[in-house]
Amino acid sequence: MALGDQNSLPLKMMGTGLEGSTEPAQLQEFSQTLQTHTAMAADPVSLDLEDQQVPPAVRALWVLDAPEPPSLWRELMGSVREIALPCGKRPPRSMKASSSSGRVGAILKGVFPVFKWIREYKLAQFKNDLMAGLTLASLCIPQSIGYATLARLDPEYGLYTSVLPPLIYAVMGTSKEIAIGPVAVVSMLTSSMIQKVVDPTADPIGYRGLVFTATFFAGVFQASFGIFRLGFLVDLLSHAAVVGFMAGAAIVIGFQQLKGLLGISHFTNRTDVVSVMESVWRSIPNSWNPHNFMLGCAFLSFLLIARFLGRKNKKLFWLPAIAPLLSVVLATLFVFLTRADKHGVKIIKHLKGGLNPSSIHELQFHTPFLGEAAKAGLVIAVIALTEAIAVGRSFASLKGYRLDGNKEMVAMGFMNIAGSFASCYTSTGSFSRTAVNFSAGCESPLSNVVMATAVLITLVLLTRLLYYTPMAILASIILAALPGLIDLNEARSIWRTDKLDFLACAGAFVGVLFGSVEIGLLVALAISFARIVLASINPGVETLGRVPGTETFCNIQQYPMATRVPGVLTIGVKSSTLCFANANFIQERIVKSVLEAEEPCSMDGSLQVQFVILDMSNLMNIDTSGIHSLEELNKNLASYGVELVMANPKWPVIHKLRVSKLTSKIGGRVFLTVKEAMDSCLATKLASL
Amino acid sequence: MALGDQNSLPLKMMGTGLEGSTEPAQLQEFSQTLQTHTAMAADPVSLDLEDQQVPPAVRALWVLDAPEPPSLWRELMGSVREIALPCGKRPPRSMKASSSSGRVGAILKGVFPVFKWIREYKLAQFKNDLMAGLTLASLCIPQSIGYATLARLDPEYGLYTSVLPPLIYAVMGTSKEIAIGPVAVVSMLTSSMIQKVVDPTADPIGYRGLVFTATFFAGVFQASFGIFRLGFLVDLLSHAAVVGFMAGAAIVIGFQQLKGLLGISHFTNRTDVVSVMESVWRSIPNSWNPHNFMLGCAFLSFLLIARFLGRKNKKLFWLPAIAPLLSVVLATLFVFLTRADKHGVKIIKHLKGGLNPSSIHELQFHTPFLGEAAKAGLVIAVIALTEAIAVGRSFASLKGYRLDGNKEMVAMGFMNIAGSFASCYTSTGSFSRTAVNFSAGCESPLSNVVMATAVLITLVLLTRLLYYTPMAILASIILAALPGLIDLNEARSIWRTDKLDFLACAGAFVGVLFGSVEIGLLVALAISFARIVLASINPGVETLGRVPGTETFCNIQQYPMATRVPGVLTIGVKSSTLCFANANFIQERIVKSVLEAEEPCSMDGSLQVQFVILDMSNLMNIDTSGIHSLEELNKNLASYGVELVMANPKWPVIHKLRVSKLTSKIGGRVFLTVKEAMDSCLATKLASL
Repeated sequence: MALGDQNSLPLKMMGTGLEGSTEPAQLQEFSQTLQTHTAMAADPVSLDLEDQQVPPAVRALWVLDAPEPPSLWRELMGSVREIALPCGKRPPRSMKASSSSGRVGAILKGVFPVFKWIREYKLAQFKNDLMAGLTLASLCIPQSIGYATLARLDPEYGLYTSVLPPLIYAVMGTSKEIAIGPVAVVSMLTSSMIQKVVDPTADPIGYRGLVFTATFFAGVFQASFGIFRLGFLVDLLSHAAVVGFMAGAAIVIGFQQLKGLLGISHFTNRTDVVSVMESVWRSIPNSWNPHNFMLGCAFLSFLLIARFLGRKNKKLFWLPAIAPLLSVVLATLFVFLTRADKHGVKIIKHLKGGLNPSSIHELQFHTPFLGEAAKAGLVIAVIALTEAIAVGRSFASLKGYRLDGNKEMVAMGFMNIAGSFASCYTSTGSFSRTAVNFSAGCESPLSNVVMATAVLITLVLLTRLLYYTPMAILASIILAALPGLIDLNEARSIWRTDKLDFLACAGAFVGVLFGSVEIGLLVALAISFARIVLASINPGVETLGRVPGTETFCNIQQYPMATRVPGVLTIGVKSSTLCFANANFIQERIVKSVLEAEEPCSMDGSLQVQFVILDMSNLMNIDTSGIHSLEELNKNLASYGVELVMANPKWPVIHKLRVSKLTSKIGGRVFLTVKEAMDSCLATKLASL
Repeated sequence: MALGDQNSLPLKMMGTGLEGSTEPAQLQEFSQTLQTHTAMAADPVSLDLEDQQVPPAVRALWVLDAPEPPSLWRELMGSVREIALPCGKRPPRSMKASSSSGRVGAILKGVFPVFKWIREYKLAQFKNDLMAGLTLASLCIPQSIGYATLARLDPEYGLYTSVLPPLIYAVMGTSKEIAIGPVAVVSMLTSSMIQKVVDPTADPIGYRGLVFTATFFAGVFQASFGIFRLGFLVDLLSHAAVVGFMAGAAIVIGFQQLKGLLGISHFTNRTDVVSVMESVWRSIPNSWNPHNFMLGCAFLSFLLIARFLGRKNKKLFWLPAIAPLLSVVLATLFVFLTRADKHGVKIIKHLKGGLNPSSIHELQFHTPFLGEAAKAGLVIAVIALTEAIAVGRSFASLKGYRLDGNKEMVAMGFMNIAGSFASCYTSTGSFSRTAVNFSAGCESPLSNVVMATAVLITLVLLTRLLYYTPMAILASIILAALPGLIDLNEARSIWRTDKLDFLACAGAFVGVLFGSVEIGLLVALAISFARIVLASINPGVETLGRVPGTETFCNIQQYPMATRVPGVLTIGVKSSTLCFANANFIQERIVKSVLEAEEPCSMDGSLQVQFVILDMSNLMNIDTSGIHSLEELNKNLASYGVELVMANPKWPVIHKLRVSKLTSKIGGRVFLTVKEAMDSCLATKLASL
């Protein structure tokens, strides 16, 4: 008797002479009720009405007789293939129908996305990119010089780093907004990791060589992450850890700027706050110069006010962007006119002009510090990618396109490898300059090309003008850029959302501040992974009840209106795997829940709970320890006279239960849904009454 | 229009003069159909029909307005309390109504379970325990002597270890069957870890002192695991790893017995198979003695035949149990009568008799090797507990009672601490002897007391009789006990059930065999934890379809009969947490599924998929990275014109979604079940047509 028949019944009845002989109102009401009911039962989802006939026993067989899940080997190959062919298995259409020249073109377009967009590029767009690029350059030139001093290199190396990498990124990158160049955190990382090995004051050439070697390694790591599609490695630094790390790094950088701001000559090589403050404290009475400090503070206030105005009024975005260049020009003029350098104001002095010199001969592959350089390269590569991809993704999602993380990594890797051959240290996408680029209305990576050209012109023609630029102004430019790295709002929101995440955030922050960069990163990684492992070891169980009006069984604490059936305990496991680390724990928790659920009946010590339904829908996998403990659970419950029933085991789980013959050991009491398990329990209970 | 009204409708109609005027058959059929249908809807679970009235919109509010989940702090305190009070929060009744003396009694009973059962102990039970204890002693005495040589101690130390620890366990332990004493694997572990520090041939007294120190540490670790309820630490060695470890250790021990069997004098201190074989190979031409070998092999065959017969016929269980003692007696007599020791057969010679001497003065706490001793103690403690608890649990579940793992650990810890003061090395529950104890019909831990007394009598009176016992017989007794440690069936079942578990098993096996005990354990631990972490990093997603006849949505590959609705993609996440390690991965997989699900329509490039329902029922938790990636997913899907809908977020998840305002960002499209989400999608779709 199919349900489909009901649909036609009212019509049939209405057409068989019934209209006249009975009360039409009542009949109409009935027909309406029936239609409503039919509509309720036969909602759009369950349009295929015949399936209502499938009895629950057959569905239980569907569970037990599910096809075999793919073997471990096939799954492994599948995920390898998936990683290697991220765009799906079908080759793109352009490749299907094309000749070999077309194929080469497609590969070229894949490696150099510039070929994709350059054909459709219009002059009007170039006008926007030109403006954005020039704005970018005005911010980039002073920042590059400042960051180079942060990396403990000569100022011109910052400018070199702003020339070649942006050009390479423009042809290989996929982001339209990212502004490439040196950034504060990477510069600090570079100096803090390399100066532990070679002292930049004692052996500046050896230090520089090792910096380029680390840059080379960073590029190699980045490119291989992209080529082997290991982009997920960058994700291992959680969002919260990055927030904490950036804030800690910003504060460390800020304290280090006291050197420039106070005009101190002898300064510690260590990066933790305690050492830096100690160094400042010890130097102030001897070597500080108030002129430096006053000059620096004056321009820092100017930069901060410009920044504040730019934030208040979005149309004034250019103000904070050109303020640094303006400060440099004004401060240089001021020093030049007053000859303040004779009164102790430290100035850049000689800034080597000209094109990027080759640095291939400076790379050190036969040094005893090669391991250190590679380690520094790895840390720098990960931090640089984290910053670039975070900033790239957020602006891409603002403009509504997707960034290919792996392609980005290849582009960044090659730009750094090439950079290490041409006197650049590690460059990446900058938070602050990308925002300026976006606000200035950039349309394509060409804005990076414009910026690089402007920096190149500066290098070739204008370096001599920077002779009198005071060091204090560089410190204040770096200081003014730091607040952007400290995201208090985000930290607050992390605290509100997830306390353990905040712990990782705070761990990274404190680790960077009082230990070192590596300690901060390790603390954050350790907290994050400890969390995953602990969640697997100590998952807990939840008691489920039926949510009124549905067939769904949910946590009775989350849904207080959910109803439980006396004598049947429905339990869910809060983990995706039942494995060696949690199986015994879960088993004991379930037995405890059964014992605690109800007081033993006074008569014979038997429990009121007669059935335990184990909702296995959360369990994605199980191992042999898990199977053993389910077996033991079944024996244990049986010794209390309680039957174990399983509901909705997932694919690998039911397969393993079948292979280990556990399904037959629990008497085949496996059902597709908790509701059907419950029905079966109640039927057994009724039959036994 | 409530469903409840419908129930009465057929009756109403039947009673309003309809019977006569229309075809009764048709009406009857209709009424029957309706009743069947109603019965289907109103199954025993949904008897309370009024809840059918709750509209889905209200249920969606239940999701959004769920009470706040317990804070991290409260959960932490809860789990601490749960660990500390494993018997539930209610104090047991005996404590409630009792005086202070009663309370002391309850605490005494808790610490010394002997007080619980000794009052109800009957003489008939003692008869069984006496028989079991004597059988046990006949097996234990020769094994103890053999295992002492395995631990590279003088033979009497094995006997000492079989005296005090069983007595202490009898008053503190909860298992009725476990037979306490030295075991093969722990003996091998002890010698392999301590002889790396002190050579037992060169400095036997220093070696012995360090063994006792390690035993002391092992006891302290075991007791503290129990007291601080850290029993789960023992679970970290997965079942599969233990199977592999035991098999590897058994083979290593077997190869080491070649020394005794061949009568070799100079032997390697290393435990890996390659070193041992090399040592044997080099010694055979020089120093082996065929008499030792023949004697050993003859009795090994006898022991193996006895073992085989005992396995074939359960009633002959006593045969393998007394065979070792019989062999010792026969072999000793044989050597005594033939004076074979003059022909190169190695004999025990002097065996110091008398009670356990104190060894407190031998404990070394001021040695430079204290750290090594503590490390050895930790490894020994874990392995000893693993063996004891595994064997205890399996026999407890055979007899239908539960073992309190933490109490067991305290008992084992105290027996080993006390043992280390009385010349015992680490003892634990033995696989083989526990089986003999069980088969011999033991009823209580008193069988251990009987055994200990028998060993004590042997020590005091009979040691001189063992003067002529050949060493080869000890080797064959150890060899005969090894097959019980190699569980090929279990290994095969692990291979069939879970390939990755087998990898951990094989890793432990190969590590022990070719590396060392620690390497084997570390390999197994690393594989096991790598698995947990990898499963969290690379979880994958599954496409869901509705299983016919239910409201449940399941994996369409597992249930090929599950139906999908065109235009709506239902996706589940195969992980219990959406966190930094997998959030981006999952997001990309979902976007890919949407893009791959259907070819873009040729006209405007928009996709046929209009809705993505994310089934969040598996997700137990989410962190800020997860929330960020959901936000990004929503933006991404929106840019393709696809709406994101969420179904069944669990407690902490919905709380965090609410706190981070993501629920409002996705327009409040959160539903309790996938079905209701689907209904809402289809309603939206219909409305837009």
